Amino acid sequence: MPTRFPATSVYQLEAGSGARLDRIDADLDRSLEHLFEFLRIQSISTDPAYQAQCRAAAEFVAGDLGSLGFDTSVRPTAGHPVVVGKGGNGQNNGAAPRVLFYGHYDVQPVDPLDLWQTPPFEPRIETLDGGRKIIVARGACDDKGQAMTFVEACRAFKAVTGKLPLDITMMIEGEEECGSKSLFGFVRDNATELKRDLALVCDTGMWDAQTPSITTSLRGLVYEEVRLTCADRDLHSGLFGGGARNPIHVLADILSAMHRPDGSVAIPGFYDGVRELPADIKADLQGLGLTPEKFLGPIGLKIPAGEKDRLLIEQISTRPTAEVNGILGGYTGEGAKTVIPGKAMAKVSFRLVGAQDPEKIHAAFREFVRSRVPADCAVEFGSHTSAPAFDVAFDNPALSKARTALAEEWGKKAVTVGAGGSIPIVGDFKSVLGMDTLMVGFALDDDRVHSPNEKYDLKCFHKGIRSWARILAALAG
Amino acid sequence: MPTRFPATSVYQLEAGSGARLDRIDADLDRSLEHLFEFLRIQSISTDPAYQAQCRAAAEFVAGDLGSLGFDTSVRPTAGHPVVVGKGGNGQNNGAAPRVLFYGHYDVQPVDPLDLWQTPPFEPRIETLDGGRKIIVARGACDDKGQAMTFVEACRAFKAVTGKLPLDITMMIEGEEECGSKSLFGFVRDNATELKRDLALVCDTGMWDAQTPSITTSLRGLVYEEVRLTCADRDLHSGLFGGGARNPIHVLADILSAMHRPDGSVAIPGFYDGVRELPADIKADLQGLGLTPEKFLGPIGLKIPAGEKDRLLIEQISTRPTAEVNGILGGYTGEGAKTVIPGKAMAKVSFRLVGAQDPEKIHAAFREFVRSRVPADCAVEFGSHTSAPAFDVAFDNPALSKARTALAEEWGKKAVTVGAGGSIPIVGDFKSVLGMDTLMVGFALDDDRVHSPNEKYDLKCFHKGIRSWARILAALAG
Repeated sequence: MPTRFPATSVYQLEAGSGARLDRIDADLDRSLEHLFEFLRIQSISTDPAYQAQCRAAAEFVAGDLGSLGFDTSVRPTAGHPVVVGKGGNGQNNGAAPRVLFYGHYDVQPVDPLDLWQTPPFEPRIETLDGGRKIIVARGACDDKGQAMTFVEACRAFKAVTGKLPLDITMMIEGEEECGSKSLFGFVRDNATELKRDLALVCDTGMWDAQTPSITTSLRGLVYEEVRLTCADRDLHSGLFGGGARNPIHVLADILSAMHRPDGSVAIPGFYDGVRELPADIKADLQGLGLTPEKFLGPIGLKIPAGEKDRLLIEQISTRPTAEVNGILGGYTGEGAKTVIPGKAMAKVSFRLVGAQDPEKIHAAFREFVRSRVPADCAVEFGSHTSAPAFDVAFDNPALSKARTALAEEWGKKAVTVGAGGSIPIVGDFKSVLGMDTLMVGFALDDDRVHSPNEKYDLKCFHKGIRSWARILAALAG
Repeated sequence: MPTRFPATSVYQLEAGSGARLDRIDADLDRSLEHLFEFLRIQSISTDPAYQAQCRAAAEFVAGDLGSLGFDTSVRPTAGHPVVVGKGGNGQNNGAAPRVLFYGHYDVQPVDPLDLWQTPPFEPRIETLDGGRKIIVARGACDDKGQAMTFVEACRAFKAVTGKLPLDITMMIEGEEECGSKSLFGFVRDNATELKRDLALVCDTGMWDAQTPSITTSLRGLVYEEVRLTCADRDLHSGLFGGGARNPIHVLADILSAMHRPDGSVAIPGFYDGVRELPADIKADLQGLGLTPEKFLGPIGLKIPAGEKDRLLIEQISTRPTAEVNGILGGYTGEGAKTVIPGKAMAKVSFRLVGAQDPEKIHAAFREFVRSRVPADCAVEFGSHTSAPAFDVAFDNPALSKARTALAEEWGKKAVTVGAGGSIPIVGDFKSVLGMDTLMVGFALDDDRVHSPNEKYDLKCFHKGIRSWARILAALAG
C-alpha cells in the first residue's frame, strides 16, 4: 500500500535522523579537534612560500575523507592540487541525486599580523560576553570551517549507518583565494567524473544569526572598458576651449545617459531575459525587512541608488545593474592645469541576472556608446570578463527539501536569496557540467572573513553539521 | 584755422614717418645685431642654473634702453629682476597718452636639445624654399624678438628726431615663462610709477602672415575642483551594486547637465555680463572665414563643439566656456576591478568674457553642483584660479589709431580678435593700474614657440618695427 508506506519511512528516517544528530552533538569536541588540526595548516595559496603547506592541507583533506570511506586522490594542477573523493557509489536508490560537494582548503593571507589578538594559525575557542562561543583562526569560517560542516555530517552518517546516504563526490580545491585559476580547466578535463545531478557548496552566509539561507542565484558579470579619443593631442583650454570637443564631456554624457531618472538602465534591450520573481519569493524577500538603515548605514549612506520601484534587497541581488568602476581623463594632480585632454577612459561593468545574454549586453553597450560619440571622435573597447548569471529553478525538488531540512534544524523558515556577486565556478557547474548548485552556508556578517581575527560561531559550526545531516537525509529520502 | 592745420600736420607726420621708416629699413642689419646679442643670453627663467644669465639679460635690456635715453633701473624681486625704463617725459603734448610697454626677457627651456637643428642660443638667419627668411633661436619670437620690435621703433625715433614721441615707461620682466610670480606684487608696489594711460604689449600673433591683428580681449578664468564622497569606503560592486550610490554616476550626471544640447552652459546666471559683439566687429570676424577645417583639422577634429548658434571664432575667443579639465574615480589600472568607489573628483574651469563676475561664477557653479548631490553624499570644493576677463572698449581712440597704422604698414585691414586664453598681468593692468592694454604682435602660427627650432620671420621683425613706429606716431599725433 504505497499510500501507507510513507508514514513508516518518515518514522524510520526520523529515528535515524535522531541518532545521527545525537551522534553529532556527542562528537562535537572530536569534530572541533579535526577542524583545529586543519586550521593549523598555513595553506595561504597566493604566496608561493606556503606551497608545501597547501600541499599538506590537501593531504589532510584526502586522509580525512579516506577515513570516511571516500576513494580519494590528490590531483596535480599547474597550481595547488585538487582533492577528489568519491564515496557512497551504488549505496542509495536511483531516485536520489548524485551530488558534487565543492569547497576549498586554501585561505587568505594573514597580514596585517599585528592586528590579530592571537596567532592566526593557532585556533582557539573564545567565549564572548553573553556566552556566545566563537572559533578564532584564519580559515575558521572561509572555507575550512564551513567545508568541515559537510564532512562532519558525512562522518556522522558513517558512524551511525556505516555508509554515506548518497553517491557523493568531493572536490576540494586550493586556489579559491587567488582566483581558482586551475579549477576551470580541471573541471573541463574531468567533466565525466565530476558531472553529477546536483552540486552543493558551503561557502555562503546565513541571513542573520537565527535565519538559515539558501543562495539560489548569483549575478553574472560583463566588464567593458571604453577608451575615447577626440583631438589627437592634449589642448590648451584657452586656445581651444569652446571649439574643440572634450572627451570627458562626451564620456559624462554617455555615462549619465546610461541610467534613467527612475534608476533603470537605459541601454536598449538591457532587460531582455530578466525574470520577475515568483510572488511568494518576493513576499519572502519583503518579509526580511532589509532597510536602508541596516544595509547602507554601515557604509555611511542612507538612500538606495537603484531602480526606484524595487526593494533594496532586489536592487542588490535579483536585479541587473550598470556601474562605472573607474574613470580617468585630463589632469588629476595637485593644482590647476587648463587642459582639454585628447583622451578619456572609463571602466563599466554590468551585473546580470536570469537569462540576460552577456554577448548581447556587450554588443548593446557598445552600440549605445558608439551612437553617442561625435563623428570626428573615435572609441575603442576592451572586454575583461563575461559570465552569465546563475540561478536554481525555484521548482527544483532539492531546493524545497533543503528548505524544509533547514527549517527543521533552525526552527525558522529558510530564506532564499540572490547573491549580488559572481562565483564563476558555479556558472561552470551549470554551463560545463549541466547541473544546478545549492549554496547553503552558515557564515555571519561579523565573521571578519579575509580580515584579522576571522571567526566562526561555534553554534554555526555545530548546527551547520546538523543542517547538512538533515539535508543529506532529505535528498536521500 | 584749425580746419586747415591738420592737412599740414598729416604731411609733416608723413614726412617724419617716411624718414623714420627709411631709417628702420637702413638699420635692419644693426637691429638684427642687437637682437642676436640678446638672443645669445641663455635666460631660462625656470631653471635656477641660469640665474646669472637671467641677470645678464636684464642688464642687457637696461643698457640698451639707457642708450636710447631711458632712465633705467634693474629692480630686484624675490625672483629674477624687473627692468624699468622711463623715457620721453614731458616731450610730447598732453593729449597723447602716456604708455607702459610690457615685455619679458626670459625664455623657455630648450629641451629636447637634440631636436634643434642648430644650438638654440646661436641665432642665425635661415632662408627657406621660396626665399622666406627666418630668425632661428630660443626667444627669436617669444618674447625677445617681439619686444625688440618696439625697442627698435624707439631707436628709429631717437635717431631721426632725437627724442621719443611719447612718454614711454618700459617694464621688462624675467619670469613670464614661469608664471610671473614676482610681477603681480611688483606692479602693486610700484603702482604710482607704472600707472600710465595705456599699456602696450608685443607678445601676441598675426591673424595670418599677411593680416595684422590687435588682441582686444582676453578671456578670464575660474578654476574649480569638485571632490565627491558617497560611501565612506570603496565597495564591492557585487555586494553593493544597485544599492549604493556611485559617485562617478553622480559626477557624470552633474558634468553632463552642465551643457545644454545646443552647446550652451546650463548653470543659472552663467551668461550674466556676457556682451554681444558690435555688428561690424562680428562681421569682421565672420569675414576672417575661420573654418573648422582650418582650425580643428590640424588637431584631428572636424566639428565645432561649442554653442551651435555661434561662429567657431566666437566659440574660441569671445564666448565663455565650461570645460572639465580632469576627472578621476575608481579603478583605472590594467584589467578589471569590480569596485564602486567611495570618492570621485573632477577639475572644472570656466573661460569668462565681458563683465562675467568670477565670484558669481564660483558661487553659481557650486550651487549647481550642490543641488545635484544626493542628500546622503558630501561634496567639497577647491578653487585654484580666479581672474576676470579683459577687454578694450571698441571706442578707445588708441584702438582705432593702431588699426589705421597697422593697415598702412601691411596694406590690409587689421583684425581685432579676442584671445581665448588669459594673460593675468593684463588683467592687473586694468584692475590695479586702471588702464587698458593694446596687444599687438607679429608672431605666426608656425613660430614653434616653446618648442625646438623656435623662429621669427625676418619680415615680421622688420615690419613689426615699422608697425610700432607708425603706431607710436599715431598715438602721439
